[in-house]
Amino acid sequence: MKLFDGGLAPNPRRVRIFLAEKGIDVPLVPVDMAAFEHRGDGVTARNPLQRLPVLEFDDGSVLTESVAICRYFEERHPEPPLFGTGALGRARVEEWNRRLELNLLASVAAAFRHLHPAMREWEVPQIASWGEANKPKAEAFLRILDARLSENRFVAGEAFSIADITGLVAIDFMKPARIALPEGLVHVRRWHAEMSARPSARA
Amino acid sequence: MKLFDGGLAPNPRRVRIFLAEKGIDVPLVPVDMAAFEHRGDGVTARNPLQRLPVLEFDDGSVLTESVAICRYFEERHPEPPLFGTGALGRARVEEWNRRLELNLLASVAAAFRHLHPAMREWEVPQIASWGEANKPKAEAFLRILDARLSENRFVAGEAFSIADITGLVAIDFMKPARIALPEGLVHVRRWHAEMSARPSARA
Repeated sequence: MKLFDGGLAPNPRRVRIFLAEKGIDVPLVPVDMAAFEHRGDGVTARNPLQRLPVLEFDDGSVLTESVAICRYFEERHPEPPLFGTGALGRARVEEWNRRLELNLLASVAAAFRHLHPAMREWEVPQIASWGEANKPKAEAFLRILDARLSENRFVAGEAFSIADITGLVAIDFMKPARIALPEGLVHVRRWHAEMSARPSARA
Repeated sequence: MKLFDGGLAPNPRRVRIFLAEKGIDVPLVPVDMAAFEHRGDGVTARNPLQRLPVLEFDDGSVLTESVAICRYFEERHPEPPLFGTGALGRARVEEWNRRLELNLLASVAAAFRHLHPAMREWEVPQIASWGEANKPKAEAFLRILDARLSENRFVAGEAFSIADITGLVAIDFMKPARIALPEGLVHVRRWHAEMSARPSARA
């Protein structure tokens, strides 16, 4: 088994942090996204969507989509549970992982891809007005997240989960996307400091 | 327990089809999205994101996000399994459900929201160039889906799953979004006819 990795990009990092939290070692195959290697034959043959990461099994079959890769490892290595426990607990992790992905990570990524000069050849057409429209979307969601974290240590409740990983990666990606964390949001800041201090954050 | 429903919108329909496939009856509370009822106090108090559907339990707690609601029912009523079976089977459903949601449903929804005159007060600012940019994204993904369905009866493999529901809802939403199914794609057409013929498609 090997994992085609994408360096600094948010989704490859999500999977690396997840594996670090599980204590699972998977050999990485570095792919230089800055050199467009993810659009080369090697990745395209494994994922026609030309996205990373891609997990390849020893029989040559592949699994794509960061959350699907994480779920595979959750099923194979249930401890510690990072997708929640119990029917409502699992649904709650899904709820917050999706909220963070669809309302924060997606908005931050849209701002990055549609506004950053380095993304001109990645996102065609680059539409600056759409990039700008995503900044207030991200900020509005961060206020909802702050309210959530005022009452919960972790995003999905009492236990660390993949939702915290998605949130950490999304907020760290605000820096290259040039979105400042709004003033206040003391609960988001407390939580972000705590997540950043976990050893897995360096994965 | 009751489900705040949103009529014709894709995500409420996803959950209704899922419940029909499971044979689960949940009382629906209709919310008139055309009259902006989902932005009123009743929904906002339950979901600050003002989106539907919302599942409310008898103790007043709520669960949002269509896939999270479906996963809750999957955990409580495992048969028939609609999120896959076994580690790789569950990961495969997650992979294709995400691919369909992020590459097809999201693109179709963006075209609808940013181009349809009726959406002018929903999507602010409405950015026509972004709506147009999503049409070729949806079409490119449909070709990948067609290749997948040339070798598999269902999207995720040999069994019907939530990924088929997401795909059906996304393709049906192409009509109000005014995106034509590209010529050819015989496997997508075969699969879409089969999915549409299931009794759950009328839910």
